[in-house]
Amino acid sequence: MMAVVKAEAALGFSYIEVARPRPGSGEVLVKVKAASACGTDSLIYDWEPWAEGRVRPPRIVGHEFAGEVAALGDGVTGVDVGQRVSAESHFFCGTCPQCLAGSQEVCHNLRIMGVDTDGAFAEYIAVPAANIWLNHPDIPDQVASLQEPFGNAVDTVLAEPVSGKRVLIAGAGPIGLMCAALARAFGAIKVIISDPNEYRLELAHRMGADIALNPKVSPITGPVLSATRGEGVDVFLSVSGNPKALIDGLTLLAPGGRASLLGLYNKPAPIPLNELVIFKKLRLYGITGRKVFATWQTTSRLLSSHKIDLKPLITHELRLDEFDKGFELMRAGRCGKTIFRP
Amino acid sequence: MMAVVKAEAALGFSYIEVARPRPGSGEVLVKVKAASACGTDSLIYDWEPWAEGRVRPPRIVGHEFAGEVAALGDGVTGVDVGQRVSAESHFFCGTCPQCLAGSQEVCHNLRIMGVDTDGAFAEYIAVPAANIWLNHPDIPDQVASLQEPFGNAVDTVLAEPVSGKRVLIAGAGPIGLMCAALARAFGAIKVIISDPNEYRLELAHRMGADIALNPKVSPITGPVLSATRGEGVDVFLSVSGNPKALIDGLTLLAPGGRASLLGLYNKPAPIPLNELVIFKKLRLYGITGRKVFATWQTTSRLLSSHKIDLKPLITHELRLDEFDKGFELMRAGRCGKTIFRP
Amino acid sequence: MMAVVKAEAALGFSYIEVARPRPGSGEVLVKVKAASACGTDSLIYDWEPWAEGRVRPPRIVGHEFAGEVAALGDGVTGVDVGQRVSAESHFFCGTCPQCLAGSQEVCHNLRIMGVDTDGAFAEYIAVPAANIWLNHPDIPDQVASLQEPFGNAVDTVLAEPVSGKRVLIAGAGPIGLMCAALARAFGAIKVIISDPNEYRLELAHRMGADIALNPKVSPITGPVLSATRGEGVDVFLSVSGNPKALIDGLTLLAPGGRASLLGLYNKPAPIPLNELVIFKKLRLYGITGRKVFATWQTTSRLLSSHKIDLKPLITHELRLDEFDKGFELMRAGRCGKTIFRP
Amino acid sequence: MMAVVKAEAALGFSYIEVARPRPGSGEVLVKVKAASACGTDSLIYDWEPWAEGRVRPPRIVGHEFAGEVAALGDGVTGVDVGQRVSAESHFFCGTCPQCLAGSQEVCHNLRIMGVDTDGAFAEYIAVPAANIWLNHPDIPDQVASLQEPFGNAVDTVLAEPVSGKRVLIAGAGPIGLMCAALARAFGAIKVIISDPNEYRLELAHRMGADIALNPKVSPITGPVLSATRGEGVDVFLSVSGNPKALIDGLTLLAPGGRASLLGLYNKPAPIPLNELVIFKKLRLYGITGRKVFATWQTTSRLLSSHKIDLKPLITHELRLDEFDKGFELMRAGRCGKTIFRP
Repeated sequence: MMAVVKAEAALGFSYIEVARPRPGSGEVLVKVKAASACGTDSLIYDWEPWAEGRVRPPRIVGHEFAGEVAALGDGVTGVDVGQRVSAESHFFCGTCPQCLAGSQEVCHNLRIMGVDTDGAFAEYIAVPAANIWLNHPDIPDQVASLQEPFGNAVDTVLAEPVSGKRVLIAGAGPIGLMCAALARAFGAIKVIISDPNEYRLELAHRMGADIALNPKVSPITGPVLSATRGEGVDVFLSVSGNPKALIDGLTLLAPGGRASLLGLYNKPAPIPLNELVIFKKLRLYGITGRKVFATWQTTSRLLSSHKIDLKPLITHELRLDEFDKGFELMRAGRCGKTIFRP
Repeated sequence: MMAVVKAEAALGFSYIEVARPRPGSGEVLVKVKAASACGTDSLIYDWEPWAEGRVRPPRIVGHEFAGEVAALGDGVTGVDVGQRVSAESHFFCGTCPQCLAGSQEVCHNLRIMGVDTDGAFAEYIAVPAANIWLNHPDIPDQVASLQEPFGNAVDTVLAEPVSGKRVLIAGAGPIGLMCAALARAFGAIKVIISDPNEYRLELAHRMGADIALNPKVSPITGPVLSATRGEGVDVFLSVSGNPKALIDGLTLLAPGGRASLLGLYNKPAPIPLNELVIFKKLRLYGITGRKVFATWQTTSRLLSSHKIDLKPLITHELRLDEFDKGFELMRAGRCGKTIFRP
Repeated sequence: MMAVVKAEAALGFSYIEVARPRPGSGEVLVKVKAASACGTDSLIYDWEPWAEGRVRPPRIVGHEFAGEVAALGDGVTGVDVGQRVSAESHFFCGTCPQCLAGSQEVCHNLRIMGVDTDGAFAEYIAVPAANIWLNHPDIPDQVASLQEPFGNAVDTVLAEPVSGKRVLIAGAGPIGLMCAALARAFGAIKVIISDPNEYRLELAHRMGADIALNPKVSPITGPVLSATRGEGVDVFLSVSGNPKALIDGLTLLAPGGRASLLGLYNKPAPIPLNELVIFKKLRLYGITGRKVFATWQTTSRLLSSHKIDLKPLITHELRLDEFDKGFELMRAGRCGKTIFRP
Repeated sequence: MMAVVKAEAALGFSYIEVARPRPGSGEVLVKVKAASACGTDSLIYDWEPWAEGRVRPPRIVGHEFAGEVAALGDGVTGVDVGQRVSAESHFFCGTCPQCLAGSQEVCHNLRIMGVDTDGAFAEYIAVPAANIWLNHPDIPDQVASLQEPFGNAVDTVLAEPVSGKRVLIAGAGPIGLMCAALARAFGAIKVIISDPNEYRLELAHRMGADIALNPKVSPITGPVLSATRGEGVDVFLSVSGNPKALIDGLTLLAPGGRASLLGLYNKPAPIPLNELVIFKKLRLYGITGRKVFATWQTTSRLLSSHKIDLKPLITHELRLDEFDKGFELMRAGRCGKTIFRP
């Protein structure tokens, strides 16, 4: 079959022919219908230090997808050939203390699809049956492939309720935009988002932000305070990975507020803990991965009921062999989500 | 001044002249601009057993209002003559264990405005400064007078998050209708409400319910299950005081769900605790009164931001001396909320 | 092998020879070393209406045990022959909405060991690998067999924190006694327990209760109020199934408190919801089964660290063929926990 | 009267005669019986940059005390002359959004006793009646004066339950030692504390720590992991203000754990957020001040019931004029808590 592969320890991916995987015991073979590109894929494409330290080529990349069950390995029950499915991209061991406690998202032995194992930018992928999610009939494939990153947005927003709260989001990439849509749908009374990219700020308005600010144009402090009667926001969602945006967000949080941290930082962020966390009695939540499958239930219900519409976020649909164009768009910041179709 | 008074221990109210109250030490005198009628007022009007056991005539009734500060008693700070205000109707002692713990809503020595002390169906009312709430400039008086019952709806809905959940509400009286509006605004994916009154079910659709069911016409079980893939709802809000509706609601809750109980029951409700609460691992929340003033902050933000529009709920505005007509409408179930203007 | 069997639809059990089970695919065969008797077993022994409606003889009973892995069925990983194990007695489907949400304890398709499937009062038992729990080396078998009911006590107590709280427990059967030990170990400042059985009240003092009251001797209201400065308790744990004790407990809860409901009731309990739940703003938690395996982690840590010592609770150890004597002791209320050894 | 005063902008305090305060309207005059020294007092004594930036001499210092009501200002109710009292040291405005929400501990206009207003190292102090706490008869004055810092420890420990958890505390100063006592009393199954001061580690054992480690002697990683089966701790309490200890603590937290941050840092702490917070899905709680008066209720109950015994922590009792000796002991790290008696 054809697949997008990190063929060697160098920049870029290759579109090459590889052996079709066979489902092992307890595994499900899925024919991929739609797969979406994520920032993590970009890091591997660009062969950034993190990728270099972790990925072992050759490796098929991609971890967000939707498809159809093509075959079942030995001992698999509860899913049938032909069913429309996606999959949790975090493979968990099921036996470490975290898994036993029901927190598979922080499994001690976590392996990630498309990073540590072969991924979904291919015609077929084999995944453990324990990771399979049955897609709702009212969610089309290209949207279903977004359930994985959308789950991250859901957990970022819902770490505590946002209903009736004022929310500031740092970063209007795909997950920040999903957060904006969620905060609005969940009754936040003010949704403010910041990003240096005007294309994304434009999208932010369409996804539900009340106010979209460009910190490169002018400081966000004034507009945020004037939108909140000088009180600051109740909720800060950090999805940008920009240390300055983190400090700004914590500063603009009203005392007693909460922050969710999802965006990753290039280096340790020096946080003035006294003034920004301790004296303000803030609560900070690190967010990584999705609850299996509580988060997937929520994403499925939100999408199938059309409470959240992710279609405006899908700005490009490409053939899988056009992957280079997709990563170019991401690098240029000229896209929302790009869907690849094998 | 003129006031609506429970003049004696008998059916009905009287519209009579009484002495204008003078603000005592620590009190605020408010000129009433709008007051709204509540089911509790009806119980006193009808001289129901509960009222007979508690209210000591003569007593000015009414406990939901908005007005303007007319004068300040000794030692009052933080509020000025001319400011637009409403007031928390629960007078708390501030020194019992509940008050010290920050749960003034269950003060051990609670007295209620218009029940235990003179109320707001009058030209003026004197209230403790500790109960005064400054009204937001964007909330007009007739809506501001609804903040008190609306706060009950907010606490009923928000006992746990409803975002992404399926919600069943028993009772489409004013608070049930407010709950429907809130559940929708907070991102519930399905809002189902039941009531035997068609007028109210009509209103329910306008306030945001997805499905409005009349249990007198046909059982609600079928429609609720078919709207939830046979799974039942995640949240049940009991605001009707009907024991059958309570049992139905607990039955239709999916295992692991939660119920909020606000509606009052005429007699002890026999609940099959094993099947409906214990085996299903439900959580039940008794709801009474509002958090002082956390709930008021939320109501004010929701109304001033227009996330919630209570205007469709205000079906009648009357002069205070037309109070009889107001209570007749309530008895007939032909109104949402009725506003009286002194 | 020999087993205690509900042989026919009549009073009592039989100790008879039956075929040794063989582990099916995904199952583990365990050689039982210790099994403990539970009130549910008594209901089946006595052929109470609930048992008659649910159990299909012939059926091996018993669902609390510890043993050693004797053999593995096909496809089982993560456990080895010879390991010391116990098992979660609730068999869950893994695919219903509750299971997917991580709430296997309220699985829609729950089957119970020793009730719906053959149980542990036998030399061997076969259980799904997904239910196996590896016993900590510092927990001896007779204590390890108590992890199942102890988990119920843990969830009953920990539905909300008890540290620094005043706790009332209705019922000093084994789970009530475990609750007393837990409340004390978790820093409750007052642990009060009530039961009509003096033998059990004696045990209650040894397990950690500060005050043990007999409601048949005199009402508990006075002593509870005087032990709490007239304020009532913060936490009520209902483990008796006695409706009068439930009403007493809710009445003695201070406003704003919480109750956990575990004990089962013979018939629907008529609760004055207005006065006892709604006006008091209580929170009620139905408790059934254990979180898989979050609760087991906690029980294992508490027992292996000796924070909780369940040995005083084990008042009798019998051979499995002496089962009649064990159930006689339970009926007479002259025991804590009885351990059977095959 | 005599008082310990920061008389001028320089090192040290002076013991001098000053005018006895008179209680203003809404204030209570308290005759101080016992006052305890805190690290904040040391910062002012040593005229550290923080103190220089905030304190305006002359200023009577001290903010932890117990005493007897000597006189009442106008309009004060709910407290009588002769009653034994302490006081919340944070003066809150009561009208800012945080105060209205019931979070007076993060009042927008917070002023601190002994820092922004005259303090308790004096024969008398005048405090707002709203800050007065009635001391329980079973708590002697020297222990009652510790309720203020003890409340910080209570909130640090109870940000989430510790029952059944493994707890690591960084810093064995008075608050760290209180945390150790609390964690043990609340059923933590392992209480580990670290501090470079051997005198304090000795005290830590007496206060309830299972393991007391000196990071200057050898790294704490090994002992912590071996005490937790290699899993790390579930709870980390940062009370030292040492950035290295913070990083160590976050590193040793098991994924999914929580940290409470109370200790203050000299400069922004560079935290590797990706590895230590985000990927591990941690929850971080900033802790400052006490809930008014929910925390005081808990402290009072824990101390009056003798669940927590703070006496071993009181290593020195001095006359107020011996204050220099007290601060010398603190600087040398040769004391637990020092009580001054006017």
